[in-house]
Amino acid sequence: MASNSLGNIFRISTWGESHGKAIGVLIDGCPAGLALSDADIQAELDLRAPGNNPYTSPRAEKDQAQIYSGVFEGQTTGAPISIIIPNEDQDSSKYDALKNKLRPGHANFTYLEKYGIFDHRGGGRASARETAARVAAGAVAKKLLKTQGVDIFAHLCQVGNVKINSSEDFELMARNTGQSALHIADPLAETAMIAALETAKQAGDSLGGVVEFIVRHLPSGLGDPVYEKLEANLAKAMLSLPASKGFEIGLGFTAAELLGSEHNDVFENEEGRIHTATNHAGGTLGGISTGEALIGRVAFKPTSSIRKAQSTVDVQGQATVLELPEGSRHDPCVAIRAVPVVVAMCALVVVDAILMARSARWED
Amino acid sequence: MASNSLGNIFRISTWGESHGKAIGVLIDGCPAGLALSDADIQAELDLRAPGNNPYTSPRAEKDQAQIYSGVFEGQTTGAPISIIIPNEDQDSSKYDALKNKLRPGHANFTYLEKYGIFDHRGGGRASARETAARVAAGAVAKKLLKTQGVDIFAHLCQVGNVKINSSEDFELMARNTGQSALHIADPLAETAMIAALETAKQAGDSLGGVVEFIVRHLPSGLGDPVYEKLEANLAKAMLSLPASKGFEIGLGFTAAELLGSEHNDVFENEEGRIHTATNHAGGTLGGISTGEALIGRVAFKPTSSIRKAQSTVDVQGQATVLELPEGSRHDPCVAIRAVPVVVAMCALVVVDAILMARSARWED
Amino acid sequence: MASNSLGNIFRISTWGESHGKAIGVLIDGCPAGLALSDADIQAELDLRAPGNNPYTSPRAEKDQAQIYSGVFEGQTTGAPISIIIPNEDQDSSKYDALKNKLRPGHANFTYLEKYGIFDHRGGGRASARETAARVAAGAVAKKLLKTQGVDIFAHLCQVGNVKINSSEDFELMARNTGQSALHIADPLAETAMIAALETAKQAGDSLGGVVEFIVRHLPSGLGDPVYEKLEANLAKAMLSLPASKGFEIGLGFTAAELLGSEHNDVFENEEGRIHTATNHAGGTLGGISTGEALIGRVAFKPTSSIRKAQSTVDVQGQATVLELPEGSRHDPCVAIRAVPVVVAMCALVVVDAILMARSARWED
Amino acid sequence: MASNSLGNIFRISTWGESHGKAIGVLIDGCPAGLALSDADIQAELDLRAPGNNPYTSPRAEKDQAQIYSGVFEGQTTGAPISIIIPNEDQDSSKYDALKNKLRPGHANFTYLEKYGIFDHRGGGRASARETAARVAAGAVAKKLLKTQGVDIFAHLCQVGNVKINSSEDFELMARNTGQSALHIADPLAETAMIAALETAKQAGDSLGGVVEFIVRHLPSGLGDPVYEKLEANLAKAMLSLPASKGFEIGLGFTAAELLGSEHNDVFENEEGRIHTATNHAGGTLGGISTGEALIGRVAFKPTSSIRKAQSTVDVQGQATVLELPEGSRHDPCVAIRAVPVVVAMCALVVVDAILMARSARWED
Repeated sequence: MASNSLGNIFRISTWGESHGKAIGVLIDGCPAGLALSDADIQAELDLRAPGNNPYTSPRAEKDQAQIYSGVFEGQTTGAPISIIIPNEDQDSSKYDALKNKLRPGHANFTYLEKYGIFDHRGGGRASARETAARVAAGAVAKKLLKTQGVDIFAHLCQVGNVKINSSEDFELMARNTGQSALHIADPLAETAMIAALETAKQAGDSLGGVVEFIVRHLPSGLGDPVYEKLEANLAKAMLSLPASKGFEIGLGFTAAELLGSEHNDVFENEEGRIHTATNHAGGTLGGISTGEALIGRVAFKPTSSIRKAQSTVDVQGQATVLELPEGSRHDPCVAIRAVPVVVAMCALVVVDAILMARSARWED
Repeated sequence: MASNSLGNIFRISTWGESHGKAIGVLIDGCPAGLALSDADIQAELDLRAPGNNPYTSPRAEKDQAQIYSGVFEGQTTGAPISIIIPNEDQDSSKYDALKNKLRPGHANFTYLEKYGIFDHRGGGRASARETAARVAAGAVAKKLLKTQGVDIFAHLCQVGNVKINSSEDFELMARNTGQSALHIADPLAETAMIAALETAKQAGDSLGGVVEFIVRHLPSGLGDPVYEKLEANLAKAMLSLPASKGFEIGLGFTAAELLGSEHNDVFENEEGRIHTATNHAGGTLGGISTGEALIGRVAFKPTSSIRKAQSTVDVQGQATVLELPEGSRHDPCVAIRAVPVVVAMCALVVVDAILMARSARWED
Repeated sequence: MASNSLGNIFRISTWGESHGKAIGVLIDGCPAGLALSDADIQAELDLRAPGNNPYTSPRAEKDQAQIYSGVFEGQTTGAPISIIIPNEDQDSSKYDALKNKLRPGHANFTYLEKYGIFDHRGGGRASARETAARVAAGAVAKKLLKTQGVDIFAHLCQVGNVKINSSEDFELMARNTGQSALHIADPLAETAMIAALETAKQAGDSLGGVVEFIVRHLPSGLGDPVYEKLEANLAKAMLSLPASKGFEIGLGFTAAELLGSEHNDVFENEEGRIHTATNHAGGTLGGISTGEALIGRVAFKPTSSIRKAQSTVDVQGQATVLELPEGSRHDPCVAIRAVPVVVAMCALVVVDAILMARSARWED
Repeated sequence: MASNSLGNIFRISTWGESHGKAIGVLIDGCPAGLALSDADIQAELDLRAPGNNPYTSPRAEKDQAQIYSGVFEGQTTGAPISIIIPNEDQDSSKYDALKNKLRPGHANFTYLEKYGIFDHRGGGRASARETAARVAAGAVAKKLLKTQGVDIFAHLCQVGNVKINSSEDFELMARNTGQSALHIADPLAETAMIAALETAKQAGDSLGGVVEFIVRHLPSGLGDPVYEKLEANLAKAMLSLPASKGFEIGLGFTAAELLGSEHNDVFENEEGRIHTATNHAGGTLGGISTGEALIGRVAFKPTSSIRKAQSTVDVQGQATVLELPEGSRHDPCVAIRAVPVVVAMCALVVVDAILMARSARWED
């Protein structure tokens, strides 16, 4: 089972609770010979850092990742890489009042049903904090991919019912996204999205959103039929994210509305390279990468924790009201913070697919 | 890797090409003590059978499944269950003309890129025929679930841009679906869907669609955080299906448009049982089942094989035109045939989750 | 779990009972591009065939393997390879009298304890017949290895208390073994072994034995620390064989008697190639192959089924006597028939290690 | 692959190098509801501690294990348990002189062949220090087993060519072992073993040894045919230990010398409980536990690091002499320190088998 692990060859295992001593990730199967340092991990974690904008929760600590193993004289050795991120900000007393209340949209009910015990402080394993460990592992995967020219970016393409206009100018989108504290590729849409966020925040409420990922310069031939299809592993990776509710590759649900003659991507020969004239498929056919950009989207529900009072019951079934304590930290839109995590998940899935593809043929 | 396998404890491995001797599935990890016969498998295969309606391809053969192992005196023994479905209808000569042409929306290009070889007859492993093996395995899973009162049904909720109206009367929906050759829960929508299908078929074209699944009477506590969440495994299972492009659980992408106060399902006490007043989440919280109905949707692209001529290139990159041979068999809408397969995937994932949940606590 | 599967990338799953319709093996992860035919499988199965000598049971059938999938135009495609071996000789009525008797040394007691049901006809999954499926899979692995010059042979180095003299002339040993119906590398020892077997057979009894395997021309760098060490996977593979009771690599238990200065293999430079002057280690250091021959041994207990009457109890605990029916077929020494199976297990483990080693370094 | 992980449901992953910041183990799949504290781990680590006797290396530090996750209010929660053991004693400068020399019996050659890089300080992942992480994980497994009355002990049954006399009085053996700093069950043999160790130590040499494990009060029905047999998983676990060269279950290699009528354990009814009159099989039949004591042995080669000078070559292939620096710490007999590690491996394999057995039947 190993339910806290993901990946076949490049395999990560995350651990740690939101309010324990630390969280961490163990990477097994990272090939030897990659230059790697704490700073490589830190750079990615800083992108995910809270407090970069007014719409992610202002958690006081700054995540500080340390590599504990698997790197010798600046290079990966093939041994497991253990990365640890201490939890510095651990006052959990404010959660005591919530201890026995079932929290709408939260996992305390289901964890209790399953395990009979729940670390209620900040959400335990169900906390979004677990995703910091994914980002740390993703930093290693991204560095591997960079050596092969594979580039990944993600952006917030929808907040509530504000959607950005689609574009095929990936360079511009990537550049805009890098300059936006909210990871938004379209400056015009950003204004409307901020307005929606502000309205929700003022109302003590939250908003859902959609994150789009784009992987460029991916080699063809990645992904293993039939159950390790590239998009199947991406879907699993994305649906394992807290608050995610949907995944699509290429046109996704929109594809359901089209005719085959509209949707099919026609093959053509461009200066000796066979590729498809359009990319409705989103970069895979039959679960294997075509060499076109890998494109898809992940839907996130609105943050479950809201300032507004909510009726609920306690663990004994007694009716009660849930009000978060003053000063509770919650993002009005989890999708914002999810953007670098979606990138990390892409990187992890793609690196694993690259390593798996090394076994596709007997004679290379 | 084992890329042709799915599941942790209840683990299936499918094999076989569309035009080889047979296809089959090996089930490892089925508990001992289930009454099982060939007829149990056959009943499910017949639901998927082609030719039940004018919009699935009229393949001549009737799939005949045989259990080769793992059952003794009518009961499962705990040994692996090997189920074999012979391919009877194997004239593949008509595919010869297509041999070297890259087929838009098909996997022959990517298989060649990956493996350097492709069984072009009918799609090889990428053929939808592989899903018959899933249905056979799903029949075993469904029988296990039936003993615990878990019920699964799926229906075609969208064809092209015709969508059915949503309903919470699952009994009625299940009954209507059972009476519809196209697995449509809403007789009114069915008329419009058939009209759309007929138009596409006449034009030598195809249509996409969406399948919704509903699992009732599921116990709470199923699904393993954080990477074996129930919805993560469902997402992987569904995106491993040929032609699938998207997955959502609960409100899915619609959740992204809502406020937290709208989306959160409030807990209440109904005659001593804690449950949620609404079920926007679709039956899980934190990746673990709540005990409410498990509900989600899978998007399918329009069938890639169409009668209309399409421009393409051959494997050497020379421009050519793809025209399917007279009498080629293709469904105008793969989503129709996918309905029982979606049910099978649900059953497989749920049974696996039930067995995994047996290890959640040390003291039961 | 998948308890009927072995291997990480090159993964086999066997199925079938001794007296069912067929047995078989599914190979997932065989790379594309290997020339493969039914005849390749058959050649290996014939080596294991009963009736090659008077000391293996004269089962009437001849195993006929058929490849059902994964091969197209004579080459592996990367798709799963399903190999099926029908059971032709299925009169199991003679086992009826034994149905409720616990058989000393057999698995019917433990299967009943575990599963509550047991296919008593010929041993079900616990039958040595399951190893035919391993040999079929091993034939594929051997063919892969042959393309890289890796050579495996095994020989019967002990029967009862008759042991052959050790030798480092592997060529001679391999040649002698190939000419011996009992797979014995030393013609002098063969005479004594046959005498011992004859004595046991006449007495209605059976004898244990030891099989030694030798893998030559293995590349260095195979095996993954720390739990996928080459010898760890060999040990698991060998202890999964019916009737096996021990495994050793290199000097094995004899190493325990030595001084470090005696056991250590000193490195030397032979014409530019670093290797060890001796090979007490048996071809691995730290779980990774050195490039020297991989050598080890597997101990087999005497066949549990003997003609001599044995006291026992039935499933209700009533004292009874077990007498095998007239004409029962049993090998007086299972180790003889195990020889080609040990070769198969070596081949399977080594191929898997070769594929895993492809991920050891990022830059190759 | 996950080559640093062991187990199916109760799955451990170890990490860390001998001279890095720390070593550790991540346990995934430990059921919720076990009372667990740092002290539980520490107690087992102390048993393995160096310096308990003159024949294990006097490493200065005392291992101090800390649980970082997975325990809340003194109980396991079902979340992954991360245990970290800092490395306090890290002066590795003395290894610098050895950096480029290939060390007979060591893994630096093979790691270099495989990965192209090797953390030469103290052996990296190939160091016996990795086994401290196994003992920490084993402590959790032992605590689980204790709640079910399963008891495991191991003892040093052979050093060089001194063997203890076998006995069936397990109570006495366990008691004697507990009182012996060298884990020897027979006080008479202990004297001879110490003499042999002293002679080897004085000569700057080392000795091999054999460790026997005995698991009492094990339920029947554990172990999964055919590749997850209880003894197959034990064999893999034991051969994954540094310096181990052989494994046997029950009579092991001795079984090869016997007649079937001698080796078969006859079933009998003892006051309503069916069991075997003898236990030559060592507690399993067909890979599944019988309910008798689980007994086997592991052979360890003599420590590779010896004070005596040894000829070798360096990484460039130049002849040189290896002399360990003054004050190098090495055990004259690794088998002594291996005793609690063998216990840990037994506990890990057995707990995993218990959890796997929960899926054996559909109706419990």
